[in-house]
Amino acid sequence: MNGKFILTCSGCGKTFAPSPELYLCPDCSRNNDTVNPPKGVLKAVYDYEILSKHKEEVITGNFWDLIPLLKKESLPKLRIGETPLYRFDRIDGETLTFELYLKDDSQNPTFSFKDRASAVVSAYARENGISTIVAASTGNAGSSLAGICASQEQKAIIIVPKSAPHAKLTQIVMYGATIVPVNGTYDMAFDLSMEATKEFGWYNRNTAFNPLTIEGKKTVSFELFKQLSRAIPDYIFVPVGDGVIISGVYKGYEDLLKVGLIDRMPTVVAVQAAGSSNLIENIGKPDFTIKPSNTLADSISVDIPRNFFMAQYYLLQYKGEWLSVTDDDIVNASKILARNTGIFAEPAASTAFAGMLCYQKNQKLLSKQRVVVLLTGSGLKDLKAVSSVINIPNAIDPTVDSLRKNEWIKF
Amino acid sequence: MNGKFILTCSGCGKTFAPSPELYLCPDCSRNNDTVNPPKGVLKAVYDYEILSKHKEEVITGNFWDLIPLLKKESLPKLRIGETPLYRFDRIDGETLTFELYLKDDSQNPTFSFKDRASAVVSAYARENGISTIVAASTGNAGSSLAGICASQEQKAIIIVPKSAPHAKLTQIVMYGATIVPVNGTYDMAFDLSMEATKEFGWYNRNTAFNPLTIEGKKTVSFELFKQLSRAIPDYIFVPVGDGVIISGVYKGYEDLLKVGLIDRMPTVVAVQAAGSSNLIENIGKPDFTIKPSNTLADSISVDIPRNFFMAQYYLLQYKGEWLSVTDDDIVNASKILARNTGIFAEPAASTAFAGMLCYQKNQKLLSKQRVVVLLTGSGLKDLKAVSSVINIPNAIDPTVDSLRKNEWIKF
Repeated sequence: MNGKFILTCSGCGKTFAPSPELYLCPDCSRNNDTVNPPKGVLKAVYDYEILSKHKEEVITGNFWDLIPLLKKESLPKLRIGETPLYRFDRIDGETLTFELYLKDDSQNPTFSFKDRASAVVSAYARENGISTIVAASTGNAGSSLAGICASQEQKAIIIVPKSAPHAKLTQIVMYGATIVPVNGTYDMAFDLSMEATKEFGWYNRNTAFNPLTIEGKKTVSFELFKQLSRAIPDYIFVPVGDGVIISGVYKGYEDLLKVGLIDRMPTVVAVQAAGSSNLIENIGKPDFTIKPSNTLADSISVDIPRNFFMAQYYLLQYKGEWLSVTDDDIVNASKILARNTGIFAEPAASTAFAGMLCYQKNQKLLSKQRVVVLLTGSGLKDLKAVSSVINIPNAIDPTVDSLRKNEWIKF
Repeated sequence: MNGKFILTCSGCGKTFAPSPELYLCPDCSRNNDTVNPPKGVLKAVYDYEILSKHKEEVITGNFWDLIPLLKKESLPKLRIGETPLYRFDRIDGETLTFELYLKDDSQNPTFSFKDRASAVVSAYARENGISTIVAASTGNAGSSLAGICASQEQKAIIIVPKSAPHAKLTQIVMYGATIVPVNGTYDMAFDLSMEATKEFGWYNRNTAFNPLTIEGKKTVSFELFKQLSRAIPDYIFVPVGDGVIISGVYKGYEDLLKVGLIDRMPTVVAVQAAGSSNLIENIGKPDFTIKPSNTLADSISVDIPRNFFMAQYYLLQYKGEWLSVTDDDIVNASKILARNTGIFAEPAASTAFAGMLCYQKNQKLLSKQRVVVLLTGSGLKDLKAVSSVINIPNAIDPTVDSLRKNEWIKF
């Protein structure tokens, strides 16, 4: 334990000294199976009472007091996070009455939000003398871990469903990680990585299993706090698959609340793909039921939302909202986003934007409200997803006459 | 003319008041043809004498005095440039004696260096009431202009050779630009865009034709100046195609020299792909000869290096160096770069890195020298280029036993 934080079970509330061997609460996870979301996910807790006496120092120290690491030098030298927040006033020529803010996390070293989590996990491994890290991934978390480990001279082993997008597989191999495609789904890759962790003593970065991924992901909320000059957004639209990113967003604001830097929580809106909406469909239900996933938004396509219980807790506790959007909505949102802002986002990110558009259409976003959309990764990571709306015209002869003759060239 | 700068012909030295209709020196460009590099490329010149009396203000003003724009608000709201500079001490376990710095320009809104040029051109168009901009492009400049125009509510028309990489074409379409693929090379697309500019009165962003692209690109040198605490690099490795990026790097440092902020120029090393090395092959030759291009580094694959004369001037004037590297070198450099740093770069960027590796191998980089490599774009933009070195193993069954049996999974 490095003295800055302890781990507490999000189920029973028991506390534990952190250690790289500790992932889930031993008691609550005893009856975990491979068909339900795991119980016993742990949460890092800081000494909020002491920190609340030094609020301003927490900010000037760039929230280092709320990061579960001993030394800044443990972190990768790559620029992680510090991503831009843009305000846009118009969509397709129409002036917005609310304030639309886009948080562009494609501007990370491996071009996705996941670098925030990989960085903290990698640094923690370093502080504990661990040089090999394993992760199961649909692609983004894996390519992120592979890249971050490359920059830290650590070894990454990435277990992926063989259907993961080619771009992400290419990234993983280029970064020099060992890639292990499996015949099966992401969920099977996830289970295998956990077994292998036990069996071979690897350090595991899986989301909702390693509690530090949330500690990395929460940094986005600290950045929003600063970029919005401490104002609390009215809505934050977050793409949701396994429920870890949304828990990270909540955790960041919850930390700020506990330190006394904010006095209320934002309304977080969980947006899932209609083809993979097991998290929101099960909120408040006594028994967890699963529909097999089928969506083009691969990085939020999960059968078992691994961080279901924590995400559900946050959404209910802080009056979050949720909705799902179709794959058509997602692809259209991707185009609307790109042509209005110059941000080409991956399908998962466009899912959050589609959720915002849906709220806009239903007039749920009121005048002057601050509305943040979390854009989690680059569209270059999954070109296939938008291929249905990409129409590249036939080539013409390179003459001015041809330009004139082809009426689709709108002057 | 906005009063901050004038344009001067890089050939005859005549000066002109800037205007969106003025591209090349009318006199020197009179005999330009389509088989030789154009003459009469213009260069922006500032009142260096006055600025040299306020050197420190130039820095605190973040070099705005050296940007050919009237208002910062004309620029896109996207974060352009401000890209990270990383120092790495080791490659494949070997400690470097020189100081290796990597400038990661994949961290731009459309994931390439070209955004620096597009931003200034787009802003200048805005200040002059122009809403449509055309460019010929092998892909990066076009996807950049499309994205930047989207964020500025401007219209982009992008003329591309039909062989341009799919990722870049997809980006262009997603950003809502009009894409015009032509049956022919980049050089034919270039010529067509210039004819169309004359014919239809469009504003043209072509590199080495619109003098403001260099003004955008030079900002990388201002950033290096600050990031290296005003120290001048001993070497800057730059990927070279048409000679505009390298001219931008030189122009930035030349501006600093003229203002008196530095007292000597860095040694810039032009690195071309061996399959497209018409720029360096022609330096100092009385007649320009062209070999048709054939390299996987598509964004520096050009037959006619459009900014040949200016690049040649700079390289000779400031004792630059040059070399070419094979496609095999480029792909290998890409892998070495990614696995050691977590930066997955496009082939053009890896070309510069390959040049640095070549210098390292030949022991040209001395102890403590500051060596910068300019990484111009994301590897996600051209996955096909590295496909020859990507070996994704066959999928295994998702069991610990399979993990054990497959010896390629290095523990």
